[in-house]
Amino acid sequence: MTDITRADGRTPDQLRPVTIERGWSKQAEGSALVSFGNTRVLCTASFTNGVPRWMAGKGKGWVTAEYAMLPRSTNDRMDRESVKGKIGGRTHEISRLIGRSLRAVVDMKALGENTLVLDCDVLQADGGTRTAAITGAYVALADALEWGREHRFIGQRATPLIDSVSAVSVGIIDGTPMLDLAYVEDVRAETDMNVVVTGRGLFVEVQGTAEGAPFDRRELDSLLDLALGGAETLAGIQTSVLAEGC
Amino acid sequence: MTDITRADGRTPDQLRPVTIERGWSKQAEGSALVSFGNTRVLCTASFTNGVPRWMAGKGKGWVTAEYAMLPRSTNDRMDRESVKGKIGGRTHEISRLIGRSLRAVVDMKALGENTLVLDCDVLQADGGTRTAAITGAYVALADALEWGREHRFIGQRATPLIDSVSAVSVGIIDGTPMLDLAYVEDVRAETDMNVVVTGRGLFVEVQGTAEGAPFDRRELDSLLDLALGGAETLAGIQTSVLAEGC
Amino acid sequence: MTDITRADGRTPDQLRPVTIERGWSKQAEGSALVSFGNTRVLCTASFTNGVPRWMAGKGKGWVTAEYAMLPRSTNDRMDRESVKGKIGGRTHEISRLIGRSLRAVVDMKALGENTLVLDCDVLQADGGTRTAAITGAYVALADALEWGREHRFIGQRATPLIDSVSAVSVGIIDGTPMLDLAYVEDVRAETDMNVVVTGRGLFVEVQGTAEGAPFDRRELDSLLDLALGGAETLAGIQTSVLAEGC
Amino acid sequence: MTDITRADGRTPDQLRPVTIERGWSKQAEGSALVSFGNTRVLCTASFTNGVPRWMAGKGKGWVTAEYAMLPRSTNDRMDRESVKGKIGGRTHEISRLIGRSLRAVVDMKALGENTLVLDCDVLQADGGTRTAAITGAYVALADALEWGREHRFIGQRATPLIDSVSAVSVGIIDGTPMLDLAYVEDVRAETDMNVVVTGRGLFVEVQGTAEGAPFDRRELDSLLDLALGGAETLAGIQTSVLAEGC
Amino acid sequence: MTDITRADGRTPDQLRPVTIERGWSKQAEGSALVSFGNTRVLCTASFTNGVPRWMAGKGKGWVTAEYAMLPRSTNDRMDRESVKGKIGGRTHEISRLIGRSLRAVVDMKALGENTLVLDCDVLQADGGTRTAAITGAYVALADALEWGREHRFIGQRATPLIDSVSAVSVGIIDGTPMLDLAYVEDVRAETDMNVVVTGRGLFVEVQGTAEGAPFDRRELDSLLDLALGGAETLAGIQTSVLAEGC
Amino acid sequence: MTDITRADGRTPDQLRPVTIERGWSKQAEGSALVSFGNTRVLCTASFTNGVPRWMAGKGKGWVTAEYAMLPRSTNDRMDRESVKGKIGGRTHEISRLIGRSLRAVVDMKALGENTLVLDCDVLQADGGTRTAAITGAYVALADALEWGREHRFIGQRATPLIDSVSAVSVGIIDGTPMLDLAYVEDVRAETDMNVVVTGRGLFVEVQGTAEGAPFDRRELDSLLDLALGGAETLAGIQTSVLAEGC
Repeated sequence: MTDITRADGRTPDQLRPVTIERGWSKQAEGSALVSFGNTRVLCTASFTNGVPRWMAGKGKGWVTAEYAMLPRSTNDRMDRESVKGKIGGRTHEISRLIGRSLRAVVDMKALGENTLVLDCDVLQADGGTRTAAITGAYVALADALEWGREHRFIGQRATPLIDSVSAVSVGIIDGTPMLDLAYVEDVRAETDMNVVVTGRGLFVEVQGTAEGAPFDRRELDSLLDLALGGAETLAGIQTSVLAEGC
Repeated sequence: MTDITRADGRTPDQLRPVTIERGWSKQAEGSALVSFGNTRVLCTASFTNGVPRWMAGKGKGWVTAEYAMLPRSTNDRMDRESVKGKIGGRTHEISRLIGRSLRAVVDMKALGENTLVLDCDVLQADGGTRTAAITGAYVALADALEWGREHRFIGQRATPLIDSVSAVSVGIIDGTPMLDLAYVEDVRAETDMNVVVTGRGLFVEVQGTAEGAPFDRRELDSLLDLALGGAETLAGIQTSVLAEGC
Repeated sequence: MTDITRADGRTPDQLRPVTIERGWSKQAEGSALVSFGNTRVLCTASFTNGVPRWMAGKGKGWVTAEYAMLPRSTNDRMDRESVKGKIGGRTHEISRLIGRSLRAVVDMKALGENTLVLDCDVLQADGGTRTAAITGAYVALADALEWGREHRFIGQRATPLIDSVSAVSVGIIDGTPMLDLAYVEDVRAETDMNVVVTGRGLFVEVQGTAEGAPFDRRELDSLLDLALGGAETLAGIQTSVLAEGC
Repeated sequence: MTDITRADGRTPDQLRPVTIERGWSKQAEGSALVSFGNTRVLCTASFTNGVPRWMAGKGKGWVTAEYAMLPRSTNDRMDRESVKGKIGGRTHEISRLIGRSLRAVVDMKALGENTLVLDCDVLQADGGTRTAAITGAYVALADALEWGREHRFIGQRATPLIDSVSAVSVGIIDGTPMLDLAYVEDVRAETDMNVVVTGRGLFVEVQGTAEGAPFDRRELDSLLDLALGGAETLAGIQTSVLAEGC
Repeated sequence: MTDITRADGRTPDQLRPVTIERGWSKQAEGSALVSFGNTRVLCTASFTNGVPRWMAGKGKGWVTAEYAMLPRSTNDRMDRESVKGKIGGRTHEISRLIGRSLRAVVDMKALGENTLVLDCDVLQADGGTRTAAITGAYVALADALEWGREHRFIGQRATPLIDSVSAVSVGIIDGTPMLDLAYVEDVRAETDMNVVVTGRGLFVEVQGTAEGAPFDRRELDSLLDLALGGAETLAGIQTSVLAEGC
Repeated sequence: MTDITRADGRTPDQLRPVTIERGWSKQAEGSALVSFGNTRVLCTASFTNGVPRWMAGKGKGWVTAEYAMLPRSTNDRMDRESVKGKIGGRTHEISRLIGRSLRAVVDMKALGENTLVLDCDVLQADGGTRTAAITGAYVALADALEWGREHRFIGQRATPLIDSVSAVSVGIIDGTPMLDLAYVEDVRAETDMNVVVTGRGLFVEVQGTAEGAPFDRRELDSLLDLALGGAETLAGIQTSVLAEGC
């Protein structure tokens, strides 16, 4: 890594301060208020016994997610999607990404006929809202699964969680690959990539987009290196948060 | 008042613990995270120079509000209104109530051609979300108006805020009038009333509904007494929160 | 009361001419075309044996209401809500108010598993459409319940109607409290209140709003006095209309 | 014609009793409550000076129509299209038919840059709602054009109305062609046709549909004969209604 | 017929070149890419065993249709109805027309409890898209019924298809009745008529509209003559296409 | 590569037969009917002089895309999104992907204030519809830009097209990386990746998803190798199609 310093003083391969307030909500079976710097996302996991009708009778569970931003989570107020009467493409895209990411670490057979809905609501946005959401949702999910076990909806010997999962953004700015972009960096990035990685270091999603100029194989490789490093740190934070009593 | 004790140990004329975290959001011109017991509402005030086209050229400003609940703010998860593609009657009703309540204490001429949007998002619900929203939104509004003055969108001698405003619920449970109902009380109330009161003790809104049996004039009077008392306490809290440096 | 005379020659405590044309519709189980002066609302009551699925098996009935305005019921044509693809907040609010008002005088156990839908369509609007709607809907409801009894969907000894209900608006104009505001009065009112009262003189709803300046306790009291007087007259009209053969 | 007698005692070539209550609405520039037997439609014509932006500057006017049914205009209550959030195909189709029918008798140049919206709301339905709507809307239109002339939005020498227009349904029931079908007849008709005819006896619209079995040229001819006869009667009623002072 | 020559060299009573590519789609049970000159419509027929719940248990089938235009099937790009979030009146109207036209030649009892959905998507539009759609949809329908018989969802002796059906437009241009209008002709037509005719020469639908001036009985007669001639030619093309092996 | 043979006889690194019918539509400024095996997508490019209002005055153009599937392009008929009244997440996601992919090879300054809309409608689907859409849309875009130059909306010396772009899917099936998955392969793939590559071999988008098990770095590398090979072949086909006279 070079000795470039970023606007907030970080080195290119450094995450922003990450905190996960586990059990923030008194209502949900699992919850976490996650912060990646000034980005703050409230993640709740709702556990329901049973599955949607079209899935019933197969002995398998279901995990899904919904993402949304509060209207004034951003610098300029956005109109509410409920007021507009439809959900935008970006919201759909991120909701689907979060759902796939969490399903990748759940054994649906072991979950049994139970449903988990992860709600990720961005209270404050400063870049990386989808990666913070995935990282926090995993903690909420873990607690909701534990709740399900305690309430005997999940078998005592079943292990529905087969790995942990976190996500981080990487991008190339002025030719330098950087980890965990804040909003001011995100808008300047030539290439922007979101990478979802399991605790064991395997890829769940790799989504790279050339915002400015197309990128070559070497640049792609260096971004993937950075992302794997960041994901390892995030997995460590998740582990220690879940190790504490809630 | 009788010596009846409530589920959470309060006397009939006692508010739940009320806190107002001023300036919670880094993005909005004014903001407050308000709690009435376990009810928590994030209120942001967005200040925009200019007014909607149909109001332009009259030298007057505009104040409006939008209320919403996070899907898992409640004990059972609710579907998102953005997903359903339409806003329910209750949401509309409360958004309109909050907007009217705040407009009652703003001098639109003194505000000048500026727009304020109050967003009140319920993060956790335990009864009284609309009254907490109004009470918190006033604090966010006051700070956003100050921001407008500092940025010279509002004249230095103008005093757009002509009074403070707060709101509280009252209800009759087993024949006893009670202040600031928590959710378990709300569902049992025979009569439920939301009262919006200015800092000077004048009524802005009185909305009483017989949920169980119709109520008589005497009961109505005792509810109004309780509400005026609660509103006085809330006005005091607002004043001291706004007296601190933000 | 003072000797103030209103635009249409009424005294402050006088209702407009009120007529209720019972059985206006040949299709509905109960119906009434109600007029409060130039305000004309067609109220129909649709009786269905059975209840929505989520209520079935509890031995209880359901009463609900929908309110709407014809596009040219007003002085300026309004766009249809069906064309806009969504129902506005005001429409939702009034539909809910009508529903609650009528449910307050129905014993759901005595109704049994039957559903009543009250449709209140404003043919011509001149202030007080929601209060006329409630007053007319009660008559339609009474006839539909009678229809249900004749067709043996309601037990012969059951008395689902436990009281009558009507509604009236009151407001303060130039400092004078006035009863049953016409449109030109409504837009000038400093305070506007809709009061729903049973035949026995008990309150079902009290909805007061400071349109101009907040109001004090004494003003509130005088408005409530006026409303109770108006409601008594309306109850008398309902009684005599229902006493005639249909 | 044969000596067949219909359920309501009419001969096959007889219209139901037709009445047109001109000026029913105090708000609209023109209005008519039209009845074809038990079918009752409230038609209002809203006159606005100016045209939609995409038509401006061409010196031509615009005439459009919207049709809707009250939810309990029919024997079974229908859901409101505003509640469903979308307009059904039948409603669209009839609104478009009414608009085209009235535009056929208006000289848009003579109308000048003015807009007329015809609202046809079915208060009670018993077959033939679209034909009653067209017949009544013409009367409302004529009065609204007169209003436009009086208010000098239309030139004093301009004659925007070039003919009158009415409509009637015809159908074949048990092999017999019949005029102006009531609902019980409509559902039994093998072939159903709506014919829109000007006062001079020219066709504006011919819409024939084989509901049961396809029809041959001879049957088509006899239906057209019947329709022209009925339209002549309707034109006479329109003329005499418009001849009276309003 | 006169010796008038049309823009594309046709005589007034001549169809454009008509081709029907049977079995265009590998996915659908029946399909046809139909061309009337430059108008090209892809028609697919989807066969499903079973009927919608509200029809079940009556031993009858159901046939329905949906029509749509690709956004750039026309000379100027149109917005997608899916993006606008609602279906326009014209689309609804044509979908309903296609459905009725095909149902007129199907014996629902012989079809049994099976459902056929005809999708008619306009790939390129040059006038007469609805008539091309009906003509092509019949071929797709015939093949899908054959598929149903082969798969034993339809009895081997049942003959659900009781006739063939096709459609053609006719119109009056500069006083001359013409067959099968291309777009440039359609916009100039004073009167425009779509006629749906069975293989035996019976009418299913007659929809004539005066776009410019109302039309008289003689004009109507000459248009019907032209249409019957065109429909005979189309029926012949359908027969020979279906006679070939698919 | 191994000697594994696929269901359709291809080797793992072999594309399906790819054809591009350039100029399929007579209406659009550019168009292509592209086939990847049985997947067929009609791509049209609509050129409009001018840009949306929010972009005007910056001397830059805009390129956007919309993707949709015909209801019976798939094996089971899907409901139309226009009928459902909303666009699904997958549709949004793919439309956005196509738009970004084409913008990556357009110099917006050189394009000038012109707008291009690419419509990609799937006529028949057998896997890889989004990659076929991007590959075909590029050809339509190139022709529409040429049209813009000929009509002098684009400067004669401007070169808005800075590279070509195509896309291909890759996936791992039973442990073997494979190129250009057909539908039966797609549903079995453990990992599925769509790669968008410019003619010069640079990445525009890399979207890899673990459908079954997460994937490691080595697997990711082999998928990227395969994709770059496939993209090179596609770029060659695009070049030769565009070299022919249209």
